[in-house]
Amino acid sequence: MIRVTIWNEFTHDQPAYEGGIHGYLKSVLDTEEDMVVKTATLRTEPMTDALLNETDVLFWWGHASHHEVPDELVEKIHDRVLRGMGLIVLHSGHHSKIFRKLVGTSGNLSWMDGAKERLWCVRPSHPIAAGVAPSIELPCEEMYGEPFDIPQPDDLIYVGWFNSGHVFRSGITYHRGHGKIFYFQPGHETDAAYKNPEVQKIIKNAVRWTAPTNMIDALSCPNVSSLEG
Amino acid sequence: MIRVTIWNEFTHDQPAYEGGIHGYLKSVLDTEEDMVVKTATLRTEPMTDALLNETDVLFWWGHASHHEVPDELVEKIHDRVLRGMGLIVLHSGHHSKIFRKLVGTSGNLSWMDGAKERLWCVRPSHPIAAGVAPSIELPCEEMYGEPFDIPQPDDLIYVGWFNSGHVFRSGITYHRGHGKIFYFQPGHETDAAYKNPEVQKIIKNAVRWTAPTNMIDALSCPNVSSLEG
Amino acid sequence: MIRVTIWNEFTHDQPAYEGGIHGYLKSVLDTEEDMVVKTATLRTEPMTDALLNETDVLFWWGHASHHEVPDELVEKIHDRVLRGMGLIVLHSGHHSKIFRKLVGTSGNLSWMDGAKERLWCVRPSHPIAAGVAPSIELPCEEMYGEPFDIPQPDDLIYVGWFNSGHVFRSGITYHRGHGKIFYFQPGHETDAAYKNPEVQKIIKNAVRWTAPTNMIDALSCPNVSSLEG
Amino acid sequence: MIRVTIWNEFTHDQPAYEGGIHGYLKSVLDTEEDMVVKTATLRTEPMTDALLNETDVLFWWGHASHHEVPDELVEKIHDRVLRGMGLIVLHSGHHSKIFRKLVGTSGNLSWMDGAKERLWCVRPSHPIAAGVAPSIELPCEEMYGEPFDIPQPDDLIYVGWFNSGHVFRSGITYHRGHGKIFYFQPGHETDAAYKNPEVQKIIKNAVRWTAPTNMIDALSCPNVSSLEG
Repeated sequence: MIRVTIWNEFTHDQPAYEGGIHGYLKSVLDTEEDMVVKTATLRTEPMTDALLNETDVLFWWGHASHHEVPDELVEKIHDRVLRGMGLIVLHSGHHSKIFRKLVGTSGNLSWMDGAKERLWCVRPSHPIAAGVAPSIELPCEEMYGEPFDIPQPDDLIYVGWFNSGHVFRSGITYHRGHGKIFYFQPGHETDAAYKNPEVQKIIKNAVRWTAPTNMIDALSCPNVSSLEG
Repeated sequence: MIRVTIWNEFTHDQPAYEGGIHGYLKSVLDTEEDMVVKTATLRTEPMTDALLNETDVLFWWGHASHHEVPDELVEKIHDRVLRGMGLIVLHSGHHSKIFRKLVGTSGNLSWMDGAKERLWCVRPSHPIAAGVAPSIELPCEEMYGEPFDIPQPDDLIYVGWFNSGHVFRSGITYHRGHGKIFYFQPGHETDAAYKNPEVQKIIKNAVRWTAPTNMIDALSCPNVSSLEG
Repeated sequence: MIRVTIWNEFTHDQPAYEGGIHGYLKSVLDTEEDMVVKTATLRTEPMTDALLNETDVLFWWGHASHHEVPDELVEKIHDRVLRGMGLIVLHSGHHSKIFRKLVGTSGNLSWMDGAKERLWCVRPSHPIAAGVAPSIELPCEEMYGEPFDIPQPDDLIYVGWFNSGHVFRSGITYHRGHGKIFYFQPGHETDAAYKNPEVQKIIKNAVRWTAPTNMIDALSCPNVSSLEG
Repeated sequence: MIRVTIWNEFTHDQPAYEGGIHGYLKSVLDTEEDMVVKTATLRTEPMTDALLNETDVLFWWGHASHHEVPDELVEKIHDRVLRGMGLIVLHSGHHSKIFRKLVGTSGNLSWMDGAKERLWCVRPSHPIAAGVAPSIELPCEEMYGEPFDIPQPDDLIYVGWFNSGHVFRSGITYHRGHGKIFYFQPGHETDAAYKNPEVQKIIKNAVRWTAPTNMIDALSCPNVSSLEG
């Protein structure tokens, strides 16, 4: 059973999703037999140590209030990712403290509200693309454009085309320590990307792909002895 | 001095370039003080062993006559790339024998004549992008679209946007053995991409980047002795 | 159910494995509930189209008779990998026609019989390393040493240390088309690496990781129309 | 002219290098006609804004006093790397604030004083390996062993073999923003790795490779307009 926690900033309206993005995504994942899903928010359902310590895969959606997330929480999440927890960072989470801390760059990009996006799969052998259509059209989404200030991804799975003339690395992975990370660009609060059935397949696949492979109890930097006599 | 050889199939009209693509590219590179440039074609100026053995960086443009290129020549080029020669594969060279042999895949893609392309740089730290504008607009170019059947590139430098709704990994690198490879998508024979000043900067940078780092005389698979007594 | 076929050259003695390496590996995998395992050899149980077409994951062990493998069979395997079949290349398969065709390089290395090897995991988040010890000691194995003429792997999972003073990229992956490839260095016919329980875990994990994600019926290079009116 | 600054913690004895590691490395680079070299230390020659702003490539050697480096300085270095400055992190700098901030992981490893190391080049086409012997023996060096908690490098150039039975990814690169980073494992203060002529070639090559390609004035995350009418 994969223990999923969906963290949503939830400090401003998310008009496309009644009950908030966390509530909506929970309803999408609740039907999966191998997942048990909880939620947390910045102000109304704060993340607790107990919840974090029982999380296998953490979703992160934030936008306007990244600076309010306590550094101490960011440190705990960072430690847990390096020890094996999966992390799925959505949309405007590219500027979250935890994403920037894990990738090491600014996460900057160019942006514009209101564009048509088409996602193209460029890595059909990746488990996150399993059973998903080769391209997906999103009638309205916030445009995020290159240059996207990120390290070259370990896997570039989706490239986004926008009718505004821009492109974006929209579905990408990183390995950090024992943990796996998936960043996915769609998900503006005024649009409805997460209601797209193909997007939902991607999200479900991402949960299974980021689920821990080899969780460890603590990081260490041991002084060792020679193995050769 | 970098010894450049530009190979062009040259079996059909190349209306955008009087004297052929090889002749035009030679004129672009001839003004560079650190390059000496020669040309070869499939039928009229066949590649000789002597010329190949004195080539540091080989350009390859082919389209309709890939199958006419002798397998023996492909083997020689393959061997020389693994020993350190640089290779720059242009446009429809994605289906050339030598490109497919070096990358290991089919090189398939989707295509459509006549689109507007905009190249976006996604790796500004790469020497091939040095001094080049962050994006380049090509008013008319043959559209090549994903899925592009290639291994994930070692460096993804340019992503192409097309007004037909497609995207493409348009500027990519591979390391094979001691050699470096750059594939660049623009360059249809009816358009004029190589006359674009920013494209010319990319091509010149690519020559310098693919130039041999550590050329070796022969490949080998030696039976060795223990280094530890 | 994952349909596994183990191909073994089997043209010379394999003293460490009664019944041959294919027979031994079959016995290891036969106990897995999600796998059904068949075998093929160069001369006595030739690979048929029917068997290949019903294979999800193909093992390849060859050593002295790579040149006897028909080019036509290599083409068929290559096509099937690009369409999604998994491939696990073992030990001296680094010089097999299919491995060289898929990676694009010579597969050369340095070698020496009879060394102690220790495998170190450098990518603990990879599914192939799931549940496997961080390092594995093999008392006797054929030394394969760098430089190993391969493209930089998509994932470097295991690095081998040898008491002869050498190192090797011993467990590596590639994505080619829709297919996934795992190369694993241990497996000399006079030693007993495949009897090591940790090695067996790696092999079982590799079957599941290379199993097809998105199998397709045929490769194609379509002429498409604009998606934007 | 490449403006090099060598930062050395210099809070404890560095017995192998009279005048400190910074002084010794300066003497190695001072003879290069395309480099002008300055130094800085934690306490006696503090890094100033003026010096940092005129640095193209920054060396970083630290060991016991990482925590004394001001966070404000780390932020400034981070910003400058993302804008294009090269960074060469040496040996125990794996635990420096700036290295951890750029790579996103803990930088943990296993370690043991006093071992013999042999560096093997696994990427002979990389400019950092230009003209360098395929393997380099260091009679005495501090052992750093896997697992090394780092992201998979963009280029794995050197793998270290140790007579203690360990291996290490000893020469690796990362791209972050517009900047290039090289981490190199040898360089314990009681040994003399930097006096090895082949190591000196690597260091000189690394300066040229990490030198800025496209330096920018400021990071930004612009709100843009449609490029398509």
